[in-house]
Amino acid sequence: MIERTIETATKRYPLLLGDGAARVLPSLLRSLSCPPGTKLFIVTDDTVAPLYLDEVRALLAAAEYDVYAYVIPSGEAAKSFDHYYACQTAALQCGLDRRSVIIALGGGVVGDLAGFVAATYMRGIRYIQMPTTLLAHDSAVGGKVAINHPLGKNMIGAFHQPEAVVYDTSFLRTLPERELRSGFAEVIKHALIRDRRFYDWLRAEIKTLADLRGEKLAYCIEKGIDIKASVVREDEKETGVRAHLNFGHTLGHALESELGYGALTHGEAVAVGMLFAVFVSERFYGRSFAEHRLADWFAGYGFPVSLPTTVQTPRLLEKMKGDKKAYAGTVRMVLLCEIGDVEVVELEDDNLLTWLDEFARQGGKG
Amino acid sequence: MIERTIETATKRYPLLLGDGAARVLPSLLRSLSCPPGTKLFIVTDDTVAPLYLDEVRALLAAAEYDVYAYVIPSGEAAKSFDHYYACQTAALQCGLDRRSVIIALGGGVVGDLAGFVAATYMRGIRYIQMPTTLLAHDSAVGGKVAINHPLGKNMIGAFHQPEAVVYDTSFLRTLPERELRSGFAEVIKHALIRDRRFYDWLRAEIKTLADLRGEKLAYCIEKGIDIKASVVREDEKETGVRAHLNFGHTLGHALESELGYGALTHGEAVAVGMLFAVFVSERFYGRSFAEHRLADWFAGYGFPVSLPTTVQTPRLLEKMKGDKKAYAGTVRMVLLCEIGDVEVVELEDDNLLTWLDEFARQGGKG
Repeated sequence: MIERTIETATKRYPLLLGDGAARVLPSLLRSLSCPPGTKLFIVTDDTVAPLYLDEVRALLAAAEYDVYAYVIPSGEAAKSFDHYYACQTAALQCGLDRRSVIIALGGGVVGDLAGFVAATYMRGIRYIQMPTTLLAHDSAVGGKVAINHPLGKNMIGAFHQPEAVVYDTSFLRTLPERELRSGFAEVIKHALIRDRRFYDWLRAEIKTLADLRGEKLAYCIEKGIDIKASVVREDEKETGVRAHLNFGHTLGHALESELGYGALTHGEAVAVGMLFAVFVSERFYGRSFAEHRLADWFAGYGFPVSLPTTVQTPRLLEKMKGDKKAYAGTVRMVLLCEIGDVEVVELEDDNLLTWLDEFARQGGKG
Repeated sequence: MIERTIETATKRYPLLLGDGAARVLPSLLRSLSCPPGTKLFIVTDDTVAPLYLDEVRALLAAAEYDVYAYVIPSGEAAKSFDHYYACQTAALQCGLDRRSVIIALGGGVVGDLAGFVAATYMRGIRYIQMPTTLLAHDSAVGGKVAINHPLGKNMIGAFHQPEAVVYDTSFLRTLPERELRSGFAEVIKHALIRDRRFYDWLRAEIKTLADLRGEKLAYCIEKGIDIKASVVREDEKETGVRAHLNFGHTLGHALESELGYGALTHGEAVAVGMLFAVFVSERFYGRSFAEHRLADWFAGYGFPVSLPTTVQTPRLLEKMKGDKKAYAGTVRMVLLCEIGDVEVVELEDDNLLTWLDEFARQGGKG
């Protein structure tokens, strides 16, 4: 099992990664000063619940904890105000107090929703992230928790660091290919923004999604977490370098919002967003990344590599201007200087719209 | 004008108190690095709006800020999920970004709701408290923000410190007597838990509510804020001494919840709660505060001094057990050791119910 300490400006907490990592939960809880009888509130979704809830519940009940579970629907739609409110209500009905602990057992949606409930229940209680997807390697580190608003994704939220991340890779065996692909986009992102050597490793070792298993999968998670953790350590509250993690997300979020959450997976939207960010980088810096044949590489994993023909570029631009990273309506995008090196750049609307239109026309031949 | 620096573990911010303090807003905003054009979102209620909104708005517009206003209904009912969501929606529609500032112009309800919106809008933006009530001297310092849930008051919230508190006492001239009384209960509380000399001053100088004006009113606010600020400085997140501020609130919150918010003002409920806390203190410590004739003193200001005959004590006990300060269903009350000195004590249900019944029977003759 791999152990890491995640450090932020406000907190240090352990991350435990490996096959069977869930079994450390009882001893972990004791180290967090949770005596037997402490109320634990597991939040999970209706995909994960039938697979792993009983196992986790039994493990905790055997350690004499007072265990409750709350199951939300799978998918991004669960990150709504209604589900947030319902989860708070359930927590109150179970009698959770300030010493109780919420356990987020699931992917990014479960982590974001349960984490935001923990951040605001009685002004903040503790929680533990138990990711069950590859994508959650990203969201489980860093303490960003949120729900969506019809006017934008993750618009309502908080920074609330977990007490621990327990990443049992055995829970990933049942992950559908589409979910694995979605999470892999963030792995690629982490390599592109900060780690040329890891990028080279990915190009050499992960030829198709079928290569994402066993030790290689664990290595991808480990590297992704290390990169994410190093960024968060430098900049917990997203005032500086943490914005680099937004690479591919300016267009990615706009696409998800415009197409309706769920039409593309988050990773699929981010993949197109990264290709557009590279496209803009080439024009902004006057250089070429053609030799990397990134679109072909992405296509090999089954990612979409162009804008859906149904979207209207002016509408995408409007969504991009509403992004949380925008200031006073000016779009700020993360651009690629070199493989492994990025920076934040403010872009003018006219240029962006021109580039969006060009990108739409060329249809992924970047 | 009185200036203070409020210090917490995570932040230092200025408090400006006095007649005409609102006029410092433009220079204050510049000192917070808000250039002209910065979006300011004033949240206020429909009692305060007709009196002071235009004045504040004009002041800010003259300094070339981009000013928006959002008006909520007066009263505790506005601290609901529905109003929280509507306020977030309005903020998004106005295009607030992470550099925007929310201004909470009003009493405790406005401060709590607007503060919680600020705490969670795009994971947290800045806000300024502009209290317009005496009660708000308490809530404006300390960064506790929250909304209510039908299952309990202030159950959903955060710790989010303001950038500044601007307390223009000229806004208090229009305060109805009932509101002045409500706020004065917290002034009395601050004296009782921490400052014997201030208690003696209150007994000597504030014979009736009519004495609460001009310099005496400003002195009450100043002392209340100093006491609150000293507690918050020691314990921002309410793990220790901050719990002392809950004096009178264990029963007070239960009464408000049981009778329905608004039946009693917050201060009226806390006044009864403080008398009950003294009643319990006498029995728990085996001593008497009879010489202080606290019930007579409270009655002189027009506070209720006994339990409403309609409430059922077992129901009050259940509400007290659901308080955020309770752990595992054990009620923790703040008891009076001496005038100016309190401590937190865990109490058994049986004792509490007996004392509640006795307190109900004696009808304020404490």
